[in-house]
Amino acid sequence: MSRIAYVNGQYVPYAQAGVHVEDRGFQFADGVYEVVAITDGGFVDLEGHLARLERSLDELRIERPMTRAALSVVLRETVRRNRVRNGSIYLQITRGAAKREFAFPAGIAPTVVAIARHLDWNKAAANAARGVPAITQPDIRWGRCDIKTVGLLPAALAKQAAKEAGAYEAWLVDEKGFVTEGSSSNAWIVTKENVLVTRAPTTEILSGITRAAVLELAKREGLKVEFRPFTVAEALAAKEAFVSSATSYVIPVVTLDGKPIGNGGPGVVASRLRGLYETHAANHSSDWQAPFISP
Amino acid sequence: MSRIAYVNGQYVPYAQAGVHVEDRGFQFADGVYEVVAITDGGFVDLEGHLARLERSLDELRIERPMTRAALSVVLRETVRRNRVRNGSIYLQITRGAAKREFAFPAGIAPTVVAIARHLDWNKAAANAARGVPAITQPDIRWGRCDIKTVGLLPAALAKQAAKEAGAYEAWLVDEKGFVTEGSSSNAWIVTKENVLVTRAPTTEILSGITRAAVLELAKREGLKVEFRPFTVAEALAAKEAFVSSATSYVIPVVTLDGKPIGNGGPGVVASRLRGLYETHAANHSSDWQAPFISP
Repeated sequence: MSRIAYVNGQYVPYAQAGVHVEDRGFQFADGVYEVVAITDGGFVDLEGHLARLERSLDELRIERPMTRAALSVVLRETVRRNRVRNGSIYLQITRGAAKREFAFPAGIAPTVVAIARHLDWNKAAANAARGVPAITQPDIRWGRCDIKTVGLLPAALAKQAAKEAGAYEAWLVDEKGFVTEGSSSNAWIVTKENVLVTRAPTTEILSGITRAAVLELAKREGLKVEFRPFTVAEALAAKEAFVSSATSYVIPVVTLDGKPIGNGGPGVVASRLRGLYETHAANHSSDWQAPFISP
Repeated sequence: MSRIAYVNGQYVPYAQAGVHVEDRGFQFADGVYEVVAITDGGFVDLEGHLARLERSLDELRIERPMTRAALSVVLRETVRRNRVRNGSIYLQITRGAAKREFAFPAGIAPTVVAIARHLDWNKAAANAARGVPAITQPDIRWGRCDIKTVGLLPAALAKQAAKEAGAYEAWLVDEKGFVTEGSSSNAWIVTKENVLVTRAPTTEILSGITRAAVLELAKREGLKVEFRPFTVAEALAAKEAFVSSATSYVIPVVTLDGKPIGNGGPGVVASRLRGLYETHAANHSSDWQAPFISP
């Protein structure tokens, strides 16, 4: 449980942590967010997440509320006050609160909220060891999925469909039959020729920070990567499939809509990449940062 | 200025009216809303708005927080406490607050917020008398625009573009070049043959409550209506164009992307329909309700 939340300059008890009813995050989904993993008290890929956050804010012309350094201090203090050693921090910034109107209101300050939580990394590791089922769902999201906004209702509906089907994730499929990404993760396959395939970072997917790190790690391993869309049929014919995200790292997908992928168990490449990413995460990126890939 | 807001069973001073930072309306746009006009202390088309609200809730499987009658009492009391005779009431219902996860959390109560505001109907009337400029913007919204969710960021961006272009509204244009609707209104044209044309209520547009009433009024006037998409070129070649919404009623659109529509002034049909709707609104729908058109 989170005990203290950061809200607009103050550290407040979680139960009393609120925003105004006319916050544009509440009325218009006019805000952006990031989730950063914490291992052994350190952030994972923090710089990448903050760089993407700034890009999201800039794309929506939401004022940056503070410098990256100041934001880091807020995140660290929120983590410290909640005594989180292993978990994640959620950071949300909205355009602010104002009398409701569709156009941007003038002269308001952005709303900043940070929530830190404990998370048992063993659970993700167990999921990775077992491999997880995924289902497919039509991708009905808006046209700017490259911006990490809180307009997550379509993603929430897809995840709920996955949950009800007993699956871990929903892979979203565009009108042409190609997988875009997962409801809260990026989607990958490994072909029979051992080629990693993942969609190029366009406006149709979020350019994942974990994805960028995994790409860099894959490159160092000498793995061949193709940036292109793949179909559901291609995924089912693949040797392996997996998802990547900040709080799941790398998790093998072993079935899609109930049909096995590869031998129906976690693949060698996905497991290897997870191991490399775990090491990378444990290093807290002090020595190296995967570049944020802007679409 | 609104003085008192209704929040989850309580009437609270506006400045202190808040929702939890983990409300799903704030974190996931997982909520719906309605705006109802108030004239001379009475609601306009209230039953239609409440029927649509229930449909929106049902589509998202958000629990209905109370009966329609109880909700009406809340709305009336909020209006009374703010002494609004002419204005609007904004009602928002979200899935509720819970520890953040994409899938629906179990066992939480919906969040209910109501905000009443004064509004000078003379301003809308002046806009109607003059006619307003509109621009076009690509429709990049999600695939379920028939649900009135708070996932309004694309609409807010389009409205902001309109504002910066000195326009009143942005007409959203789909990939095939057809107008879907306005960023916060339904779009209509009147052809040279005096036929009203407006898109059929599919998942691509919101089935407007004001739109339904205007359709009924048009029918009573013996006007011919075609439910079909129209292109930007068709709109520019039309005799008239207009928008309809709860807080603007009917407003003629006299230019599109800077080019005049018809004679560049408010059209006869639009002006007539506005007059009829004003009378309808003044009657507070006590005797008649336009049916809510479900897609």
